[in-house]
Amino acid sequence: MLRGLTRAGFGNLESEEQWIRLAAQSGFQAVDVDAAGLIARNGLEQAKALLEENNIVIGAIGLPVEWRADEAAFRAGLPALIEAAEAASALGCASCCTYILPSTDSGSAHFMALATRRIRVCADILDAYGIRLGLEFVGPHHLRTRWANPFIWTMEETLDWIGAIHAPNLGLLFDAYHWYTTGGTINDILQLKPEQIVHAHMNDAPDIPVEDVLDNDRLYTGEGVIDLAGFLRALSDIGYKGVVAQEVLTPEPPSASMEELMARSKSGFDKVFAQAGL
Amino acid sequence: MLRGLTRAGFGNLESEEQWIRLAAQSGFQAVDVDAAGLIARNGLEQAKALLEENNIVIGAIGLPVEWRADEAAFRAGLPALIEAAEAASALGCASCCTYILPSTDSGSAHFMALATRRIRVCADILDAYGIRLGLEFVGPHHLRTRWANPFIWTMEETLDWIGAIHAPNLGLLFDAYHWYTTGGTINDILQLKPEQIVHAHMNDAPDIPVEDVLDNDRLYTGEGVIDLAGFLRALSDIGYKGVVAQEVLTPEPPSASMEELMARSKSGFDKVFAQAGL
Amino acid sequence: MLRGLTRAGFGNLESEEQWIRLAAQSGFQAVDVDAAGLIARNGLEQAKALLEENNIVIGAIGLPVEWRADEAAFRAGLPALIEAAEAASALGCASCCTYILPSTDSGSAHFMALATRRIRVCADILDAYGIRLGLEFVGPHHLRTRWANPFIWTMEETLDWIGAIHAPNLGLLFDAYHWYTTGGTINDILQLKPEQIVHAHMNDAPDIPVEDVLDNDRLYTGEGVIDLAGFLRALSDIGYKGVVAQEVLTPEPPSASMEELMARSKSGFDKVFAQAGL
Amino acid sequence: MLRGLTRAGFGNLESEEQWIRLAAQSGFQAVDVDAAGLIARNGLEQAKALLEENNIVIGAIGLPVEWRADEAAFRAGLPALIEAAEAASALGCASCCTYILPSTDSGSAHFMALATRRIRVCADILDAYGIRLGLEFVGPHHLRTRWANPFIWTMEETLDWIGAIHAPNLGLLFDAYHWYTTGGTINDILQLKPEQIVHAHMNDAPDIPVEDVLDNDRLYTGEGVIDLAGFLRALSDIGYKGVVAQEVLTPEPPSASMEELMARSKSGFDKVFAQAGL
Repeated sequence: MLRGLTRAGFGNLESEEQWIRLAAQSGFQAVDVDAAGLIARNGLEQAKALLEENNIVIGAIGLPVEWRADEAAFRAGLPALIEAAEAASALGCASCCTYILPSTDSGSAHFMALATRRIRVCADILDAYGIRLGLEFVGPHHLRTRWANPFIWTMEETLDWIGAIHAPNLGLLFDAYHWYTTGGTINDILQLKPEQIVHAHMNDAPDIPVEDVLDNDRLYTGEGVIDLAGFLRALSDIGYKGVVAQEVLTPEPPSASMEELMARSKSGFDKVFAQAGL
Repeated sequence: MLRGLTRAGFGNLESEEQWIRLAAQSGFQAVDVDAAGLIARNGLEQAKALLEENNIVIGAIGLPVEWRADEAAFRAGLPALIEAAEAASALGCASCCTYILPSTDSGSAHFMALATRRIRVCADILDAYGIRLGLEFVGPHHLRTRWANPFIWTMEETLDWIGAIHAPNLGLLFDAYHWYTTGGTINDILQLKPEQIVHAHMNDAPDIPVEDVLDNDRLYTGEGVIDLAGFLRALSDIGYKGVVAQEVLTPEPPSASMEELMARSKSGFDKVFAQAGL
Repeated sequence: MLRGLTRAGFGNLESEEQWIRLAAQSGFQAVDVDAAGLIARNGLEQAKALLEENNIVIGAIGLPVEWRADEAAFRAGLPALIEAAEAASALGCASCCTYILPSTDSGSAHFMALATRRIRVCADILDAYGIRLGLEFVGPHHLRTRWANPFIWTMEETLDWIGAIHAPNLGLLFDAYHWYTTGGTINDILQLKPEQIVHAHMNDAPDIPVEDVLDNDRLYTGEGVIDLAGFLRALSDIGYKGVVAQEVLTPEPPSASMEELMARSKSGFDKVFAQAGL
Repeated sequence: MLRGLTRAGFGNLESEEQWIRLAAQSGFQAVDVDAAGLIARNGLEQAKALLEENNIVIGAIGLPVEWRADEAAFRAGLPALIEAAEAASALGCASCCTYILPSTDSGSAHFMALATRRIRVCADILDAYGIRLGLEFVGPHHLRTRWANPFIWTMEETLDWIGAIHAPNLGLLFDAYHWYTTGGTINDILQLKPEQIVHAHMNDAPDIPVEDVLDNDRLYTGEGVIDLAGFLRALSDIGYKGVVAQEVLTPEPPSASMEELMARSKSGFDKVFAQAGL
């Protein structure tokens, strides 16, 4: 598995490029960044050089398509999807991810039908670029009633949805926080085949009742109560060889410096990987 | 359009074969029957002869697969689906239909995902036999809360679901009763392309508030308040050339004789087709 | 059916806008033009106004994706496809077409596999805009050996290919010239359902052996030996209500004026529609 | 990886059950057998017990559908496919395989279109039972011209075909003999992801020019010139954990006893697994 970072937990970066270099120096092997943006700012050759010189790969790009609103909004995102796919492909990234909100103001079943068609179109476009699409189930309880009607939030439901969409390049974005908040077990992970996971996220949760855990109040890796060592070991056991990227969503941007936050992140990863015997 | 009958409204038929002959004598051109059963009772050649001699076609067969329960039940129906498709194909019938209950005890979104996959498998099997699959939205209000969670019941939702399933041989079973109970308009029909309709049903509703109309308390064609002339004219205007089959679900089997019920049905069809100018 | 024109047969138009006005004045109801180009030159509102004031619709746009070469070329066309689909949708056009060369320098079976995937991606993108994709089989004999290996050129093969691609918004671009050069019959047309035809082309062939007929040596409508009256009548009989657009490919651009060519085209359409009793 | 056997190389078995027991005693962990037949002869519980007591799994069943002939033959196989899938599922087998003949008397491109649709239907049915479908490319040169037109025979073409079929449960049946006869390299294997391989076969080839190697004149594992150690090591390196089953097609059934043939097979497996460091 590759140690990765998302930008979440690092506040407003003055320079993503500097952050990438620092991540590499701290032993990280992957970053989740906007490939098209990286190319826009640096040019393709510079962007490639930045990654290669630092032995960093892009873990995943985000899906730049609003598939949760109306048809016009959906279509409006397709040009950006083509651009993002081209950029990711040019930089050697083969994963794209999007998250599933666990409730919706639309009718649940009707929205599932609409979303199925839209996600299939996105997956098919990404497939033309050799890119897989990871769907992230989102577990925190408060979001299940945040909008009028329940949608889906468990791993099992998400796998069933993947079966419904029926595109060969779909899988999970598997986030430790959502595994934890949906009551996931080690055994649940051991039932997965590695190719069912497109990408993984890691972060930690405070020691409060799980039903009170908030989506945007996460802790840095290894600073909370999630069994991240078990999470990593199970991923390793099933043969997952992809990226596990830290994603620390917080109510306020962190006040510490990028260097401090990087050291803290490295320390957390060192700890849980060691606990996992990896 | 072809004038058709389903068995609903005729009670327990002593002889489906006799009923078919009588239907033909009464000017009906199509019947919705179990093609495999017809062959099982009569043999293929006799079954074909019965239809040909009476200038009767089979309007549609029912989908013999339980796609609303669990995976085991779904799979258990597949052999019957193959048999039904073979039989329908052998008797020249190219339509198969199933209905969508408007509520479900499962999670609405999760069930939509499961049903999408299952209906696609059924559609693909039917496609191997040149058969289309019609999905019937079901409108009566009491069924929307009959089970724990709302599913879908409008024409628009059903068309969106068809888009999600993404099989080329899908369309609507368009039933006048469900059009009426979902507040459908003539203009809604005029927006359809004829190939979006696999099959149509006709029947009538009592003069009570629409939200009190019960699914299994239907009237014979032309004996109620549904604008069936408008319904037929709109279907004709968009170029629909398929079957419109009467389906009269009632709380108790009718007590009249088959001959009386057939005359009543013929009279209703004559009336509304005449009103429609067809 | 709507009388339509493509630009083929009109040489290098000085002004497509002027040509559209003249087409309308000559009784044509549809033109096959590049919707994105029309908007680029006129702005969206002006382009819409041009069409509306002249009671002209766009019959079909061309597929701006090179799906016959390598993967890089295929991907490179996807941004233009999005742009074309947006433009067509904005101008009310719901048809896009591409042609199938009857031979290929690639391995026939391998190319069929690659093309199946690529056309599906295009169809799915177009479907997001409510646009159907028509595949045109190409009949002239000389093209069947123009490249190293035979591909497909009959209507039946093309319908089977559409079944393989398995996208609900696919159909034929049905061109009278290819119908003629593949030995198509009236009965072949009568076997079609109208929704299997996305778009139609009309033009005529010289009185020479059919195996010597060249793809780019066509005659204006009604000036050759193709049974265009039978072609139109059969299309009408099956319920086709779409566009039939003239496409006259010639070795050299015609030397006559746009006005003369338009009059000739109108005269040909008047003749064959009258012969067809339409 | 699991050591497996097919029946090919063992002649006409008097008792498949006895052969399974002997295979287990000789260190084999998987057998490719007809699951439905095993159940038919033994009953489900006995069949399960036979496998469990011997720590043997079924590697793969064969696809009982004739997808290479006409549509009637294709449909005629579907009931057997349902039965086979039910049986395989009941016995814990999740793989089904079919082979691709490298030439065809049909038009290559047209047959590819037909086959794409038919294989998709099979894959979708198998998917309902949690079973994957492996497609085996077939390399021997003489078969490439055995029928009138070339089809496909390389790994790359087969992967592209899988992309065209677009079912999530498709992959390769990867046979060392076809890898060898198509000039495959270790590096070709290293480009694969393990989930692209549904099943693997192993056998050996005589020391003659590769273009003279015949499909049904194979040698037992380790008795010929194929780099089977390299084959196994590469499969292991990419993370393939499935079955590698011996398949020795010969012009005449072998004359040796089942015990001798089993010992010979075991010896060959021991040798090449040892050479591979596995």
